[in-house]
Amino acid sequence: MSSKKLTVLPLGGAGEVGKNMTVLEYDHKAIIVDAGLMFPESDMLGIDYIIPDFSYLTDRDDLEVLAILITHGHEDHTGALIHVLESFQVPVYATRLTAGLVEVKLRQAKLLNQTDLHIFKAGDTLEIGPFSVESFHITHSIPDCVGFGITTPAGLVVHTGDFKFDHTPADGWPPDFAKLAEFGKRGVLALLSDSTNAERAGWTPTETIIDEALDRVFQNARGRIIVATFASLINRIQQVANAAKRYNRKIAATGYSMVENIKMATELGYLDLPRDLVIPLDEVNRLPPEQVVIMSTGTQGEPSAVLSRLAKGHHRQLDIRPGDTVVMSAHIIPGNEEMVSRTINKLIQRGANVLYHPVEMVHVSGHASREELKLMLNLVRPKYFIPIHGELRQLTQHCKLAEAIGVPRDNIAVVENGTMIEFEDGRMAIGERVPGRYVFVDGMGVGDVGRSVMRDRETLARDGFVFAVLVMDGETGKLLDEPELISRGFVYVPEAEELFEDARERIREIVAQFPLNGNGAKKLEDRIESALKGMFQQETKRRPMIFVHVNLV
Amino acid sequence: MSSKKLTVLPLGGAGEVGKNMTVLEYDHKAIIVDAGLMFPESDMLGIDYIIPDFSYLTDRDDLEVLAILITHGHEDHTGALIHVLESFQVPVYATRLTAGLVEVKLRQAKLLNQTDLHIFKAGDTLEIGPFSVESFHITHSIPDCVGFGITTPAGLVVHTGDFKFDHTPADGWPPDFAKLAEFGKRGVLALLSDSTNAERAGWTPTETIIDEALDRVFQNARGRIIVATFASLINRIQQVANAAKRYNRKIAATGYSMVENIKMATELGYLDLPRDLVIPLDEVNRLPPEQVVIMSTGTQGEPSAVLSRLAKGHHRQLDIRPGDTVVMSAHIIPGNEEMVSRTINKLIQRGANVLYHPVEMVHVSGHASREELKLMLNLVRPKYFIPIHGELRQLTQHCKLAEAIGVPRDNIAVVENGTMIEFEDGRMAIGERVPGRYVFVDGMGVGDVGRSVMRDRETLARDGFVFAVLVMDGETGKLLDEPELISRGFVYVPEAEELFEDARERIREIVAQFPLNGNGAKKLEDRIESALKGMFQQETKRRPMIFVHVNLV
Repeated sequence: MSSKKLTVLPLGGAGEVGKNMTVLEYDHKAIIVDAGLMFPESDMLGIDYIIPDFSYLTDRDDLEVLAILITHGHEDHTGALIHVLESFQVPVYATRLTAGLVEVKLRQAKLLNQTDLHIFKAGDTLEIGPFSVESFHITHSIPDCVGFGITTPAGLVVHTGDFKFDHTPADGWPPDFAKLAEFGKRGVLALLSDSTNAERAGWTPTETIIDEALDRVFQNARGRIIVATFASLINRIQQVANAAKRYNRKIAATGYSMVENIKMATELGYLDLPRDLVIPLDEVNRLPPEQVVIMSTGTQGEPSAVLSRLAKGHHRQLDIRPGDTVVMSAHIIPGNEEMVSRTINKLIQRGANVLYHPVEMVHVSGHASREELKLMLNLVRPKYFIPIHGELRQLTQHCKLAEAIGVPRDNIAVVENGTMIEFEDGRMAIGERVPGRYVFVDGMGVGDVGRSVMRDRETLARDGFVFAVLVMDGETGKLLDEPELISRGFVYVPEAEELFEDARERIREIVAQFPLNGNGAKKLEDRIESALKGMFQQETKRRPMIFVHVNLV
Repeated sequence: MSSKKLTVLPLGGAGEVGKNMTVLEYDHKAIIVDAGLMFPESDMLGIDYIIPDFSYLTDRDDLEVLAILITHGHEDHTGALIHVLESFQVPVYATRLTAGLVEVKLRQAKLLNQTDLHIFKAGDTLEIGPFSVESFHITHSIPDCVGFGITTPAGLVVHTGDFKFDHTPADGWPPDFAKLAEFGKRGVLALLSDSTNAERAGWTPTETIIDEALDRVFQNARGRIIVATFASLINRIQQVANAAKRYNRKIAATGYSMVENIKMATELGYLDLPRDLVIPLDEVNRLPPEQVVIMSTGTQGEPSAVLSRLAKGHHRQLDIRPGDTVVMSAHIIPGNEEMVSRTINKLIQRGANVLYHPVEMVHVSGHASREELKLMLNLVRPKYFIPIHGELRQLTQHCKLAEAIGVPRDNIAVVENGTMIEFEDGRMAIGERVPGRYVFVDGMGVGDVGRSVMRDRETLARDGFVFAVLVMDGETGKLLDEPELISRGFVYVPEAEELFEDARERIREIVAQFPLNGNGAKKLEDRIESALKGMFQQETKRRPMIFVHVNLV
């Protein structure tokens, strides 16, 4: 690889491009922007989460990774950090709130002491090898977000991070338009910009619109108010606190991450909660309902989260009562729609008044819509454009937007994760593909669940299995006992006795017909397996996994 | 049960209330409105589809089911018919197109000859025992839809079916406002009205807005156009055909149900396709791309449907090429979002220009939005109101709408499936709950997959299983062979040899420590199972199903 070349490499499987990790390399030195996780899709059975495959970096002996830069504190930008740090013990750069959220994770993984965590302020410039990184403040759905203007010998690359242009954000700190415009004036080689909402017309509403909605909610609520949101939505917690103060209600938090994040953000000054506003959860039941707000997690309908437990009546300290108002203040991660709907229905069943988008404006997106994306492009005025943070469908729409405002199609790189984008002598070229797969994290295992294990899980999930155990006399070839059948997930066994008796009869027939002739039992096992497979499929139209085990004694 | 009472009973599990089946009973005589299926949610593993539990009807010896009335030809209103007809060989009433779609199903199930299928026209009155059923034309996303005004000795009940108020439907046949207004004037005891879009503000756009969108698509497309939609969206097929005619393209259909439905709807006069407009699929490749439109199924990303196979390059006759335009002209059934997104991304990857809502207005909902729902309420002016065709969340919103226009809250019944609503002496009362569960259909099995089988499938899907087979001497208690471990879906076995060797070692230890003492092997099996469970959980943080089988010889 030429040493004059700048390479931009988004990593992370078939999902959103560069959302979880992007690598910039120059002269055998690299920085990593973000190290996040993805949530598994519904057919990734049993998987806890997914991280980008960064084996390309660990495999390169000639490459020195210098640092990891984090744009903001959401899981999809920080959740793979503990895995990346196992391979690369390099400094991590983050703003204060982001660092606070990262510290919670590192502490849990017992990696906090050995990690070199650098805190910077939006506007600071970080000199990292050949990379001069100018951070700039941007607005999103969490405070203290930054993007990066990265000056390299090959030119200036601007990475927006997740963003929207919010002129009136909840924390009052608008985006650094001046810096973006200044980049534009200076001359930008390439812009990498958030495409999440590239399919969405217009301009994403400001966070403060939620204040008005919360005001309506608090004004009309007669009983308790339960607000469910992401534990990392620090802005939203502040907005709820402000409404609680206005309407003389106390706030109690429930759920580990919610409690921890409130504590941390308050200590760091990102939450302004008067001391007497917050009460412990166990004091909630002592106050009249109209004086209570409960902050909880579980907006995605996750079965183990507080809100789902409340919906099912499984929470130790709390229950939903008629008159309660429940506010779902978060977007729904695609794939969770069914679970969220079930939670809403169950809460209504228990008598709660449930408010959610679009019934009430209790959430707005944190990502820029089409008009904002055009503004970003026109502020930064890049020579080359790389839409990121979206699947191909969103990147394609973002690409069309950029073309519409004058970026030539040849200057736009719509690529998938694992594709190198190279800059040399001021020109962009699409380089080689490197492994850009998902890595499944399941329990302690990172990457050990691959295609074959997943295929087996799919088969088991669909039709279960049948296990046949035979004990035979190795010399006479006679069954020493009745064939034993064990089955799960296939049919309801107590009502399928006839089916299994037929199967045992079929096994006895096969054993009687096909003598062992001294070559072990493999052939007999195969024959029984294939007979059972055919029989079960004909009788039930299902295809369970079938295992036959013959013990010769 | 008093014989003067009219009972309305929605059936069908935790899903949309009365969507798939509603029973009206008077004087021990009942009619069934719709007999549809639901698609399984993503955690209903291996299930083909779901039907309402109508065991309440089969269990009632004193009840005579007189007829099944179908509102329109969609699967969620007709798909359980073959199962209901097994229990009740009663006449089925449907309009001509609906009957055509039903006939295709009955023929497949070899039930056509023995079914008494009555065809009526919207506006006809059907006299069925104590029920005088006035059908009225309504608009939705399929032609020939009706609702019913059902006069009983207890009063007039109006059932809207699925509807929206489309003044300019694709087939030019607007809703029968006069009939609805006449019902209102006559005096309606109860209205059952479609709540699907009760969360949606405003007025659902007319179907003809799609003509404009298709016109833009056809004008701009340079290569082939592939339009994916539901095979039952007869209107949409007509609209595509009209555009094809305008732009001198030929249409070819692909997919069994698409081909069959086009044939049937053309024969019945619901599709007006000039003879030379339609060509067989195998002639497509002989025409220049700009003269071709292909109609396909697969808008939900179903792996076996045509569109998914095209996206993956698995179709025998066709492939997606750069320059192709693919139009996704259907709504996404909740739960299918991920699969649809993957299909869109893969089509883009192959070079197609993919158009879908909201990028292009190529689909509109077939259900009434809030302003239309209010119009329905004000036309019919019912004394009592029962929101149907929605989950509790939509029913609750529909209830609020009705309250807002003056229906007293006590006159509104927001209920779940399996709840009887009784009318006697002009008054409504909520009656008892009857079984209103789902019945899972899996292969040949109807209802045999219940909670325990589903729980096993969930466990197997999450962490797989480990099976240990031991052969021991029943007298000495010694192992006659190495313990055998068989595992699927748990870990990648070739890389987990150490883990399994540890497990075998643990088994040998337990066998050595705990003698059989003559009581069979049950205790030993339990001990090994619990040891393996603990060991695997500690080593992998996974919990596979564990089975231990000891053969004593």
